[in-house]
Amino acid sequence: MERDIVIVGGCAAGMSAAAQARRVDPSAKITVFEKGGYISYAPCGIPYFITGEVKRFEDLYVYTPEQFSQQRNVDVLVHHEVKRINVGERTVEVVDLRDGKEFKKGFTTLLIATGAVPIIPPIPGTSLKGVFKLRDLDDALQLKRFIEEEKPRKVVVVGGGYIGLEIATAFHQIGMDVSLVEMKEHILPNLDEEITSIIERECRDNGVELFLGESLLGLEGDGKVRQVQTSARRLDCELVILALGVRPNVQLAKQAGIPLGVTGAIRVKMDQETDIPGIYSAGDCSETKHIVSGKPYWFPIATVANKQGRIAGENMAGGRLLFPGTVGTQVMKVFGLEVAVAGFSEKEAMALGYETASATVRSSSNASYYPDSQAITTKMVMDVKTRRVLGVQMVGRKGVAKRIDSAAVALHAQMTVDEVAWLDLSYAPPFAPVWDALIHAGQSLRAKTI
Amino acid sequence: MERDIVIVGGCAAGMSAAAQARRVDPSAKITVFEKGGYISYAPCGIPYFITGEVKRFEDLYVYTPEQFSQQRNVDVLVHHEVKRINVGERTVEVVDLRDGKEFKKGFTTLLIATGAVPIIPPIPGTSLKGVFKLRDLDDALQLKRFIEEEKPRKVVVVGGGYIGLEIATAFHQIGMDVSLVEMKEHILPNLDEEITSIIERECRDNGVELFLGESLLGLEGDGKVRQVQTSARRLDCELVILALGVRPNVQLAKQAGIPLGVTGAIRVKMDQETDIPGIYSAGDCSETKHIVSGKPYWFPIATVANKQGRIAGENMAGGRLLFPGTVGTQVMKVFGLEVAVAGFSEKEAMALGYETASATVRSSSNASYYPDSQAITTKMVMDVKTRRVLGVQMVGRKGVAKRIDSAAVALHAQMTVDEVAWLDLSYAPPFAPVWDALIHAGQSLRAKTI
Repeated sequence: MERDIVIVGGCAAGMSAAAQARRVDPSAKITVFEKGGYISYAPCGIPYFITGEVKRFEDLYVYTPEQFSQQRNVDVLVHHEVKRINVGERTVEVVDLRDGKEFKKGFTTLLIATGAVPIIPPIPGTSLKGVFKLRDLDDALQLKRFIEEEKPRKVVVVGGGYIGLEIATAFHQIGMDVSLVEMKEHILPNLDEEITSIIERECRDNGVELFLGESLLGLEGDGKVRQVQTSARRLDCELVILALGVRPNVQLAKQAGIPLGVTGAIRVKMDQETDIPGIYSAGDCSETKHIVSGKPYWFPIATVANKQGRIAGENMAGGRLLFPGTVGTQVMKVFGLEVAVAGFSEKEAMALGYETASATVRSSSNASYYPDSQAITTKMVMDVKTRRVLGVQMVGRKGVAKRIDSAAVALHAQMTVDEVAWLDLSYAPPFAPVWDALIHAGQSLRAKTI
Repeated sequence: MERDIVIVGGCAAGMSAAAQARRVDPSAKITVFEKGGYISYAPCGIPYFITGEVKRFEDLYVYTPEQFSQQRNVDVLVHHEVKRINVGERTVEVVDLRDGKEFKKGFTTLLIATGAVPIIPPIPGTSLKGVFKLRDLDDALQLKRFIEEEKPRKVVVVGGGYIGLEIATAFHQIGMDVSLVEMKEHILPNLDEEITSIIERECRDNGVELFLGESLLGLEGDGKVRQVQTSARRLDCELVILALGVRPNVQLAKQAGIPLGVTGAIRVKMDQETDIPGIYSAGDCSETKHIVSGKPYWFPIATVANKQGRIAGENMAGGRLLFPGTVGTQVMKVFGLEVAVAGFSEKEAMALGYETASATVRSSSNASYYPDSQAITTKMVMDVKTRRVLGVQMVGRKGVAKRIDSAAVALHAQMTVDEVAWLDLSYAPPFAPVWDALIHAGQSLRAKTI
């Protein structure tokens, strides 16, 4: 029987799967249904499109649907929403959003790559003009147009996570007056305070007002948003960004009876197959394994989505690949700082039941005598019982983002602090000190725990 | 019995050992004999002192002997050369080079940290004025003074290894006319040509004349050097740098009957002890283990010297630490390029008897749509039999040096190409593409070898 592969969702996971399936099986029929108008796009690029660092809107996606269709011999149907999956019948019910026509499409193998959706709190005012979420390219276009037309001066970003901080940085860069509201006592609340205190100082040094420990109660305005009401104050504004996080978009899967995991995302095996044979899932709607804890983990990020998509595509086309999981690597730019994490923070590790020890050290990006050497603060967390490293957090003005990768690899290899302390990391005066940040932290933590 | 620790050599390994021994045993007697006038200095910083990027000569050493003596309670005796080790008697014979007085000093534990010495070829003219080696701080001072006083315009660098290329870059930066002579057919002859061809082009693009496959026959001049005679031509010059590599300085050890290893450097166990109980060795004069091959390896580099020194110091003072070895990580700046290596090149691997496969890929330093994204060329080499990664070489204008560290950690963990291909490396548009260089190379090599 000819393979008839159907993919629901045309972003990172879906298109990676389509591309890989085509590589593995040149003759399979492959169809992608994408609800929106763009495929294989890079939402991570939106802040840099807002600042103008990414000049052309077209740079935010890798292919047009036409290009992908032609080059890969894949049917890519945009503005097509899959409304229902019929597991027993092995069909999907699709609506063409341009004319409302509905049809059924059969499949031999299905990939659910429906991604995640932004959390919009149930408060008044979220549909006022000037209130934006940041998830897809339409959001980016509309926000860019709003800024050009309305020239807002005062913006309130609600949510002090990665996206909130990146967009706050972008707004500041283009001269706006930025306030940030975060419900928890600190921004990036999963990280430890040795790190977040440095980032908060950087925000304030750049003139951003931080309102921490305040929750969002409502948005007010006369058609256009004019005020944000928090649990502690009212903030005037002309623009509001809701960056309260995302949740896995699992409605279709749930309705079809495809089991979810403990995280609320779709449960998959290492080959990305769900509990229903022939039905796969990849990307932000599906779970993965956290290699450090060995437990299911939901990590909606482009790196995981691309990898899971490639693996799903391989397996759907008759190949065999397994996804080992994630160590939770994440980096971001906040004003002049690079912030990077791999593994668990100490508070996350403690919440998972580990008995932890940690060390926080200050190293430098280059040999200290080399021009423009910058401080790097590194916190390393270990499991006291096994001496395994559980996580590393880093922050500094330079050279941080790619330094976290060595920590990520060490976490993949489940190294102990005693192993990490002697890693053969690169040194030359223009690039690093002899004891680079990771091994410096490892030495410090080793010495204080023996 | 009170510990009476004697350390021969006051550079990276010796001073790291002294510092660590003092931390472990606050009451041990610790004496360092250093033949030259400086301790704990950074020869790697010399090129940047020549260009003026490192402004003050004092920045090239971490401590003065006085500072170290006072702060650590260690007797640091500079201008003191150890002439002989009497193993049976457990004494060293020392000469004070300032007055020629000789004396004996007993020890309970000894560290030989005599480093490496530059190879000076047995050809005429090496002692002409204007001919320099680059090893210690006196070389740096004399070279800097020579340049200031004589204002040489034409320099010939002999040797296309790391040091030759770094100093060629420095001379070019201060406006000199640079030629480079290398005996082998390519610069950095241990690396593969996919990488060295890029570096050679960069040298030539910067106006450096490369004379490859030519050996040095002699230097000529009238007191001052005026010409370099190679096997193929005569080159006019006013300055010559001899950068033909180094050899382990093992004369003292050899004379004392301390066994050398197969590499010609002093054989040590993982605790840095030699075959003679109570006598340790660390740094450029001693061997280490190459973690990838599992074989003895000689790797004269600051990172290894510092680690071995710290481990020797710990163990000499009654502690217990083991050095796992090196994976051969090395980075350098050549004109606008960052060059980085971990593990073996394909030619090295083949010479060691491995059946190899490799992939060379071109990735980017940042998301491709992000401003100033630069190409990174990565070559990955694997052992066909075990699928283990044997080495990674990278070159590019940006973000290369610290990217090699993830390869280094993967080599420590003896990962296969199938593991490396899915590593959770960091991604954000300002810092990396979704498939970063190492995993991109891993994917490519995996796909072509299954």
